[in-house]
Amino acid sequence: MAALRTRFNSFKTGWQQSPHLLALNGRFNACRQRCISLSKCGNNNNRNSLFKNQPTFGLLFDIDGVLVRGRTLIPAAKESFKKLVDRNGEFQVPVVFVTNAGNGVRQAKAELLSQVLEVEVSQDQVMLSHSPLRMLTQYHNKNVLVSGQGPVAEIAQNMGFQHVVTIEMLREAYPLLDVVDQNRRPKEQIPPDKDFPRIEAVILFGEPIRWETNLQLIVDLLLTNGYPANPVMSPPYPHIPVLACNMDLMWMAEAKIPRFGHGSFLVCLESIYKKITGNELKYEALIGKPSLITYNYAELLVRQQAKSRGWSGPIRRLYAIGDNPMADIYGANLYNHSLQSAQRSRVQAKMKAGQVVEEEGAEAGSPAGERGGKLGGSCHAESCRSILVCTGVYSRHEELPSDPHESVTQRVFHGHRDFRFDPSLVEASYVVQDVNEAVDLIFTQENWPLN
Amino acid sequence: MAALRTRFNSFKTGWQQSPHLLALNGRFNACRQRCISLSKCGNNNNRNSLFKNQPTFGLLFDIDGVLVRGRTLIPAAKESFKKLVDRNGEFQVPVVFVTNAGNGVRQAKAELLSQVLEVEVSQDQVMLSHSPLRMLTQYHNKNVLVSGQGPVAEIAQNMGFQHVVTIEMLREAYPLLDVVDQNRRPKEQIPPDKDFPRIEAVILFGEPIRWETNLQLIVDLLLTNGYPANPVMSPPYPHIPVLACNMDLMWMAEAKIPRFGHGSFLVCLESIYKKITGNELKYEALIGKPSLITYNYAELLVRQQAKSRGWSGPIRRLYAIGDNPMADIYGANLYNHSLQSAQRSRVQAKMKAGQVVEEEGAEAGSPAGERGGKLGGSCHAESCRSILVCTGVYSRHEELPSDPHESVTQRVFHGHRDFRFDPSLVEASYVVQDVNEAVDLIFTQENWPLN
Repeated sequence: MAALRTRFNSFKTGWQQSPHLLALNGRFNACRQRCISLSKCGNNNNRNSLFKNQPTFGLLFDIDGVLVRGRTLIPAAKESFKKLVDRNGEFQVPVVFVTNAGNGVRQAKAELLSQVLEVEVSQDQVMLSHSPLRMLTQYHNKNVLVSGQGPVAEIAQNMGFQHVVTIEMLREAYPLLDVVDQNRRPKEQIPPDKDFPRIEAVILFGEPIRWETNLQLIVDLLLTNGYPANPVMSPPYPHIPVLACNMDLMWMAEAKIPRFGHGSFLVCLESIYKKITGNELKYEALIGKPSLITYNYAELLVRQQAKSRGWSGPIRRLYAIGDNPMADIYGANLYNHSLQSAQRSRVQAKMKAGQVVEEEGAEAGSPAGERGGKLGGSCHAESCRSILVCTGVYSRHEELPSDPHESVTQRVFHGHRDFRFDPSLVEASYVVQDVNEAVDLIFTQENWPLN
Repeated sequence: MAALRTRFNSFKTGWQQSPHLLALNGRFNACRQRCISLSKCGNNNNRNSLFKNQPTFGLLFDIDGVLVRGRTLIPAAKESFKKLVDRNGEFQVPVVFVTNAGNGVRQAKAELLSQVLEVEVSQDQVMLSHSPLRMLTQYHNKNVLVSGQGPVAEIAQNMGFQHVVTIEMLREAYPLLDVVDQNRRPKEQIPPDKDFPRIEAVILFGEPIRWETNLQLIVDLLLTNGYPANPVMSPPYPHIPVLACNMDLMWMAEAKIPRFGHGSFLVCLESIYKKITGNELKYEALIGKPSLITYNYAELLVRQQAKSRGWSGPIRRLYAIGDNPMADIYGANLYNHSLQSAQRSRVQAKMKAGQVVEEEGAEAGSPAGERGGKLGGSCHAESCRSILVCTGVYSRHEELPSDPHESVTQRVFHGHRDFRFDPSLVEASYVVQDVNEAVDLIFTQENWPLN
């Protein structure tokens, strides 16, 4: 299948992790430990047994631009999902939907998918951009402002946050702050609510409505250390913690050109904050694709699903299917690097400790994706392959520069500010036309029989 | 009064005009010629006559932060305006209100000022941010999208624009574009209106409501050359013309910290456009303080007012009172530079032509503000002095760095992207506590008797 490993020339521009993101990786590693404890790993005694007819791979599907565009089903999606379920409509392999959408609840997304794909999808198979916030318990007892649309307060409470403040609550407590809309300016002088608690962190779930209101109130909080009625002598820096879910600059709906995503809102927030203070806005965490924490959580869901179905073999390979090189492809490749790096570290640690590493050493030298078994007692997958489809943000018809070097400088970087260029990370393992071709490819790779 | 010429240490960071702004100056000069023809200059035969009891100076008042904060009158304002009118309530000197606000009509602003100042203000004394658009006739017959809030379409039509498209009209014609708000997404597939005309220019009047909608649709127009239903192969650059009124990043309302102005919206637009295309957004014109075109137009209004009152002497000195160093002070100083540079050019041109320039030469060497008469037949003022008040955006209590050099690097530049640093331009001619002190100062400078 080497021919299928198409070079992804048009996205030679890639990114490397910034020092800030490396700090986030520290958190990722802590989370990974938590995942391992949450999801009981397969017993080591099973490692050499055969798991015939049981999947040893899992699928991560992006939704927008892969399965649907807006509310419209992409035709190939229905075809592909027929292959994923048995006669009873039950999934034959672990499938998790990993979307950067965040302005909703998993149940609603599962119902929408069930309806359009005509396959029963449970909410446990759905991961939204903000899902990993469950693991960031250090913020759960703080007064947090939540920004987004839809039931963001309810979502935050469901994730474990105990003291949730909405933009509307802040507007009511401080009626002099939100005055861009002339019709919303207070008609009379209303004193601010003096008892309103200090806001200790800001959580950006997704793109809000009336960006001017959210931008103004969030910047006010950052400038006043969480007390927006106070005058500003010298803005504190670093500011109060900001956590953001979903960095997608754009996404593909029904329109012919991509639509603004939460990443566009973040660009506005970062730019205004910098213009006013001269400092860079800092994120305590960036969650959602392409962040490691998101793929780590997705893998946890895959393993939990396999376990609940009684598939006791290890999940050795993940396949991530998406339409956005800067989110889906970069994220899958970054996670793949992380998995492989962790494997190498464990081998080295064992060798240093003088333990027998014959088996692991042999595995580490074999081609990626061909290896079996687990390394160093970890139940993580060994690889995460990225598959780019052409039904969304990315189009195969985009102009390619004749000189590959040109593409590095000429392409525009649509990833988040805190992710740096690394050409190899936006190069997909495979490029296919649509999700149906992607499933065919995976089944061929895995020698998995079609129904 | 030399002691009053306080050094404005806290704003040592200033700006110089960018090459782009210099191009705008070409337009300014063309406009100036038009102004001269619009407003018939004083007859040269009058130049040596005396104009006793007639003012030879004019006052330009900023509104927000000088006279009012939000809807609340600043107490000093009423006191100062008592001094400007005679017993019949008529102004004794030419007074023009130069505000960067733009989401309204002059009549409404005049009525508000009349009410709070208890002085009859006519709409001819009020200049809004967009007022100079009247002079940019080359856009009046184009299909223009107007962005702002309030009656922007009506304002544009009143300024001379014949084919005005609003954001609402664009949303209706292209229902798939504005989808950030989930509740505004179309429930059914609606084909775009094929007969909708190409948008040929975008005019940004002031900060809109629902920034996400305006940002999305404006960026769509820039990416698609004015046809937002079309797919984007390669975005055109330069894009269709963008004209922006009011660059104020922030303004001072009732809240203790400044509120977002139209400049904050422009920061968002510029940042998203650059993030998506890699190119800088370009403005065909930037109108409102501190642009030259605005002060040129304000001077025209001063002269027209003097003429209508029968004050036949030339207006030799302008005084601009404001609270915003980056708008009011920079703009007045920039205009002052321009006036003096024009004077020098005319003297040089006359000397080259061998004409007698004795009188003009003597004037050019005399201290600014002390000279009389007109130069080279121009009826422009000779100087424009800037007076900073401490009742708005600027506070005298801001921390001053001990080393003056520090202020250059440490202060944050709140001016527009297209205006560069020049420390001398944000240094006010005078710093006073409030507008009442400003009027006292001017009257003393001009030996003008108090009532």
